[in-house]
Amino acid sequence: MFPARKFVRLDAGFRMHRGGFLPAIDVAYETWGEPNREKNNAVLLFTGLSPSAHAASSAEDPSPGWWEDMVGPGRPIDTRRYFVICVNSLGSCFGSTGPASIDPRTGEPYRLSFPVLAIEDIAAAGYEVVKSLGLLHLHSVIGPSMGGMSALAFCTLYPRAARGLVTISSASRAEPFAIAIRSLQREMIRADRHWQNGTYDLEDPPQTGMRLARKLGMISYRSAEEWAGRFGRERVGAGHVSGDVFGNDFEVESYLENHASKFVGSFDPNCYLYLSRAMDLFDIGEHSGCVATELGKASLERAMVVGAESDFLFPIHQQEELADCLEHDDREVEFVSLPSIQGHDSFLVDMDRFRPVVSAFYDRS
Amino acid sequence: MFPARKFVRLDAGFRMHRGGFLPAIDVAYETWGEPNREKNNAVLLFTGLSPSAHAASSAEDPSPGWWEDMVGPGRPIDTRRYFVICVNSLGSCFGSTGPASIDPRTGEPYRLSFPVLAIEDIAAAGYEVVKSLGLLHLHSVIGPSMGGMSALAFCTLYPRAARGLVTISSASRAEPFAIAIRSLQREMIRADRHWQNGTYDLEDPPQTGMRLARKLGMISYRSAEEWAGRFGRERVGAGHVSGDVFGNDFEVESYLENHASKFVGSFDPNCYLYLSRAMDLFDIGEHSGCVATELGKASLERAMVVGAESDFLFPIHQQEELADCLEHDDREVEFVSLPSIQGHDSFLVDMDRFRPVVSAFYDRS
Repeated sequence: MFPARKFVRLDAGFRMHRGGFLPAIDVAYETWGEPNREKNNAVLLFTGLSPSAHAASSAEDPSPGWWEDMVGPGRPIDTRRYFVICVNSLGSCFGSTGPASIDPRTGEPYRLSFPVLAIEDIAAAGYEVVKSLGLLHLHSVIGPSMGGMSALAFCTLYPRAARGLVTISSASRAEPFAIAIRSLQREMIRADRHWQNGTYDLEDPPQTGMRLARKLGMISYRSAEEWAGRFGRERVGAGHVSGDVFGNDFEVESYLENHASKFVGSFDPNCYLYLSRAMDLFDIGEHSGCVATELGKASLERAMVVGAESDFLFPIHQQEELADCLEHDDREVEFVSLPSIQGHDSFLVDMDRFRPVVSAFYDRS
Repeated sequence: MFPARKFVRLDAGFRMHRGGFLPAIDVAYETWGEPNREKNNAVLLFTGLSPSAHAASSAEDPSPGWWEDMVGPGRPIDTRRYFVICVNSLGSCFGSTGPASIDPRTGEPYRLSFPVLAIEDIAAAGYEVVKSLGLLHLHSVIGPSMGGMSALAFCTLYPRAARGLVTISSASRAEPFAIAIRSLQREMIRADRHWQNGTYDLEDPPQTGMRLARKLGMISYRSAEEWAGRFGRERVGAGHVSGDVFGNDFEVESYLENHASKFVGSFDPNCYLYLSRAMDLFDIGEHSGCVATELGKASLERAMVVGAESDFLFPIHQQEELADCLEHDDREVEFVSLPSIQGHDSFLVDMDRFRPVVSAFYDRS
């Protein structure tokens, strides 16, 4: 698994943004393409909540990545031209240190002894990767969803590290509606008695809680309009109500069940809880009280903010506000609102709309 | 409790719309005002999923009802002029027979032996009330949310019983997005080990499942816009992250917790499951395949369809479709789209917008 994965290890430890200290961290990443002679063609890619660093296939790992259509030779982020680095978020469970990792001080998994995770920590861990590669003048930093939050945090923590920024279906701060959904997802996991206050047996994790949380995730990632067209009132099987009055009779119920089952077992519940909460806590304007002031510090030459009109988790008005806050002297800012019907997930699904937009950014510069 | 409540009892039994038979049923209701001499001033009011028949205060029960602002002397549905009857839905737990009621054949609660509940059954139980009162020529039938579905079912089952129809934030059939949300709510309750396949101890019900389901309900009943203005990123108490990383730090989390706690214990979990599923199964066009054909059968002279633009559970496009389907020769149909920001719950909250609309319907005729 993950044959293309590389690591940066920080043995000196890592001070967390909201307090707390990790005695050592690993940051997992993958790369595509090669740095150019001037070392100015690197693109740092942050992920959403659940993916690994495997954004695209490569010679070392030919399995399709989570953004296969976007990254590669001849793709919108063309790896013949750019050196692309994707990092697994700190706090996640695909190689980077997180609540499921072993605390070297105890020999046991951190679990809930892991300090409060901030999006800023994910950004700082990403910075350690680019520093280790000697690439402190990035062409750009890019991320969808939580990855866009990480990219924004990166630009405020390291205002001179990137010339370009692309956020997709993201936000400069969490709004209460998204907080409510994520809070409920966390509560579902915590209410599962198998969770055991985070000390669950790895062979017997809170599967029910994770399944419920994933289903709510999928509801919040898509749109009513898409599902109306896709599922309508179609029934599974014979098309009438099954003997079990609470069975998954409707196609949409069966669809959620199938997808949730795949997710359960592939993601560590405590890692999910920490990453989810990190999004709620995120507010780029926290320090100065103003998003625009924070983002004004970054020496970005170009920024692009992309959103989907049907996204209700990271709604289009937040994209527009973010674009407004990015406006700054000598900075070119573009706001792109796409009429995709797939909701928050559009950037993973509606590639015919998202590819040209990302292409236009990376072709030009 | 419920001193104003009256009952109709059907000792001959009740045949359910989707099969199954109840050997006897009670239908609880309350009334306001008096029938006129022509017996043509009766208004039948169906409720949403969770309320009782106590829509408004009265001399017998001065406690405020769930639609206190809408029903009463001088209110939009003016009880000096109209005789208003509100029924507790069949399948609910506030007096009408439902899964929590005793099956006279066994002396035990029905629980999951209760037959599949359809919205049509709620409508038929309401018809038994008006029949018992000798009021088979209603001025109108009205209902918000699930109550609007019941009102629509009533008009198709008894096409000559009402001259007017008002549906508010309702739908002629369930769409997959709403089905997905309700299906997940039911799964939360069923996943609670206290549910015990419906045989829970009444002193130890599936409280966690009910609390989670209610929270998801509240998320789906409101709107992101309202919460952004109301809660923003406000924190409970000292305004910083509490020691418990997964505590209810944000105001919106605390709000959900408080409201969900109130709901738990006031509603029977099995009743909730049955009513919720009845909404998913509802499709007024089921028989002929066409909503308009079904609604065309009713001899309605006037119909009004009201919706809130921010409602994503019963979205405005469904209201508009319903109004279109109601169009018929010699029938006056009005579609009212309100810019309320409180989502599906607007009809309970944004009274300044909803009152005049309902007033206009009832003042004129």
